[in-house]
Amino acid sequence: MPTSITTPFFVFNPKSYLYGDALLNLAKVADQLASNYGMSIFVTAPFADISNISENTSNIIVTAQHMDGIDPGRGMGHVLPESLHRAGARATFLNHAENPMILSELAKSIKKAKELKIQTIVCADSIQEAQAIAKLSPDIILCEPTELIGTGQTSDESYIKATNKAIKEINPDILVMQAAGISTAEDVFKTISLGADGTGCTSGIVKSSDPSKMLVDMVESAIKANKKEVK
Amino acid sequence: MPTSITTPFFVFNPKSYLYGDALLNLAKVADQLASNYGMSIFVTAPFADISNISENTSNIIVTAQHMDGIDPGRGMGHVLPESLHRAGARATFLNHAENPMILSELAKSIKKAKELKIQTIVCADSIQEAQAIAKLSPDIILCEPTELIGTGQTSDESYIKATNKAIKEINPDILVMQAAGISTAEDVFKTISLGADGTGCTSGIVKSSDPSKMLVDMVESAIKANKKEVK
Amino acid sequence: MPTSITTPFFVFNPKSYLYGDALLNLAKVADQLASNYGMSIFVTAPFADISNISENTSNIIVTAQHMDGIDPGRGMGHVLPESLHRAGARATFLNHAENPMILSELAKSIKKAKELKIQTIVCADSIQEAQAIAKLSPDIILCEPTELIGTGQTSDESYIKATNKAIKEINPDILVMQAAGISTAEDVFKTISLGADGTGCTSGIVKSSDPSKMLVDMVESAIKANKKEVK
Amino acid sequence: MPTSITTPFFVFNPKSYLYGDALLNLAKVADQLASNYGMSIFVTAPFADISNISENTSNIIVTAQHMDGIDPGRGMGHVLPESLHRAGARATFLNHAENPMILSELAKSIKKAKELKIQTIVCADSIQEAQAIAKLSPDIILCEPTELIGTGQTSDESYIKATNKAIKEINPDILVMQAAGISTAEDVFKTISLGADGTGCTSGIVKSSDPSKMLVDMVESAIKANKKEVK
Repeated sequence: MPTSITTPFFVFNPKSYLYGDALLNLAKVADQLASNYGMSIFVTAPFADISNISENTSNIIVTAQHMDGIDPGRGMGHVLPESLHRAGARATFLNHAENPMILSELAKSIKKAKELKIQTIVCADSIQEAQAIAKLSPDIILCEPTELIGTGQTSDESYIKATNKAIKEINPDILVMQAAGISTAEDVFKTISLGADGTGCTSGIVKSSDPSKMLVDMVESAIKANKKEVK
Repeated sequence: MPTSITTPFFVFNPKSYLYGDALLNLAKVADQLASNYGMSIFVTAPFADISNISENTSNIIVTAQHMDGIDPGRGMGHVLPESLHRAGARATFLNHAENPMILSELAKSIKKAKELKIQTIVCADSIQEAQAIAKLSPDIILCEPTELIGTGQTSDESYIKATNKAIKEINPDILVMQAAGISTAEDVFKTISLGADGTGCTSGIVKSSDPSKMLVDMVESAIKANKKEVK
Repeated sequence: MPTSITTPFFVFNPKSYLYGDALLNLAKVADQLASNYGMSIFVTAPFADISNISENTSNIIVTAQHMDGIDPGRGMGHVLPESLHRAGARATFLNHAENPMILSELAKSIKKAKELKIQTIVCADSIQEAQAIAKLSPDIILCEPTELIGTGQTSDESYIKATNKAIKEINPDILVMQAAGISTAEDVFKTISLGADGTGCTSGIVKSSDPSKMLVDMVESAIKANKKEVK
Repeated sequence: MPTSITTPFFVFNPKSYLYGDALLNLAKVADQLASNYGMSIFVTAPFADISNISENTSNIIVTAQHMDGIDPGRGMGHVLPESLHRAGARATFLNHAENPMILSELAKSIKKAKELKIQTIVCADSIQEAQAIAKLSPDIILCEPTELIGTGQTSDESYIKATNKAIKEINPDILVMQAAGISTAEDVFKTISLGADGTGCTSGIVKSSDPSKMLVDMVESAIKANKKEVK
């Protein structure tokens, strides 16, 4: 499994829509894409599906939907980092709008992730919140204005540029992911072209009539946008 | 994997103390005991360890530490019932003192568990709370006065009898588990002798100098207590 | 201030829509109605407005929107029962859908309220949840199916009768409030006629073009429905 | 009531230990001290006691224990900023360890407080968390390593200096409060002498044999420490 992130990266985040074979089949498609293009592709899985995905793929970064910043011990019902790591997770989302975190627990989770070399993708719903999170030094910040989630409306150019600047001036090593309202391959192309380090998608893929094709199209659009940028 | 519960049952709940091989080794000991004695033994595992345990055992009831009452869909960061079931979980704890639940979410989790035929072990920290939970018809209620957890002090006879009566008068099908302060095989013997349908242990086993032996001793004590009762 | 509840009762619950003079003016209208008709009228207020309402009224039951089950001590940021009582609150909502409670904390809040003789109005969003709550012996249970809140659609006759039966068979002393979708005086009349012990309203009053008149109309409709019932 | 903060400031935070007359009597002592010395003294009160304190004092800054970042509307059971302001609160604690906040809600509460000109005292339990909070531009950050709360052990010189530097380099306008383990007037003197902008106390005052005298001694120690510093 890859240990460093190349840009542009892509995050396929099926949330709790998929599990078992339906999830595994798409993870294998992502795995082939990651191999073909040498690209960093994150695929999230429900906690109990993580080992099934990691045992059957080798190029994607298997990603948890959440992780608590606890050490082995009591912690009944919480998400144990060591268990995620053993199962093959090498990244985790944190502070998603559907599972927002207490600030001190977010700080602990990021710290713990660093110890285990688990990459962190931390969600922020405003530029100011993104700057606060940047001081906790996660690997990736996902800027997703809460009011755009699920609307099919993407963040505009000025928002993307302002967020990049706001985060990188605090810590230039943090990668900036923009994923609000990504529902087509064109959205992916546009978002990467506008300067996002990475992007990703949930419902645009899982609710597509052909999720596998949509996944391929989106990933290839990210690559095209990147090549264009380089020229 | 067994689908019905025989009494007395035993719950080995290592919480977040164990994962990976250390957990699997003890789960295999429990699996052999369940086979030898035809006894219902529940073994909990962190979410991402569930499939590893269920793939390597066949007689224990693999148990999650928590489960959210959600259907496949968004639910980012929550514990998806279908994912647990696919991984092999056939029971779940709910409302543990270290992860207490909002009443309406507890009701939803119990309902969802019934649909998937996942057994529910619901914690209560007072007799009155146990009666409220009984109206939600879980499979097992664990009566664990919060103030006794981790003290090495067991619930006394009057508490056990009062709890049994309070719960069974609402719904005689609910099994009553008593596990406060169980730290020795003698505690197990006493608790089952006093009329608990089942018992269980965390730190008395995981912190023992020989966890495997302690697990065997406790399970065999439960059986001895039961035979005595039958005579 | 009244200490016992007569039926039918009415709850004016402006939530966080009103505070200061706008709230006080309507509370005074309710106070006059409670005096005129000898009726139990609960009026909720934001925590910091409670003393202002109770100092300027004498017939309504001043009601908090929430109360924590804590004793004087640390509890920084929580809602201290003794402080509410001193300010004049004699009732409190608990477990509202916008502020749902952990089961064990709900049990503690109800227990504490009894000690201070503060009436409890506890919300349930299903019949089964209402039965669980009934075992905790609150004064009033508000049956408000979450999916109806704010839709302007009232609970139908079968739901009202089923809820009444389900709660009273556990504890006949608990009063049953039905308030889902009450937006007109006719809704109040219908709901009381169908057998609810009490009803109440938020947006139907605060968003009315003449909130004071709507409050009067609703309260008088409750009384009319009751007289009809008696004949 | 004062609208700007002079340093050193003192925070008397009786949490939920006091309410009614016992709280009012000490608030009056603080009020006299604030008048005598022209000093900024914050006094917290349970929500329903705020108006009683503000109506009977004129020199202290009446402070809420928490505030939600909501606008008038639904928000049942939450702490409405406009209600606090109407009752006389001109400051609020946020993110206290006994009531920790979700990051996005903390951001909203600080933003809302600025609109109403309510000062914010935001708690952090590590230097890194303090830096994240500093990006949200509160008025005061309280650095209180969780592990020291209630131990009677104060933050040492290196911790105080490191925290001051870490916060002021992000935003020099933020005041830094140090209050871990303050239990005597000497602790106050030492903490202010070491460079804290302000300090405060809970149990050292409320559990003192003579709370009023302890409050006076602490406030006067802060002033002495400040004069020494000036020379």
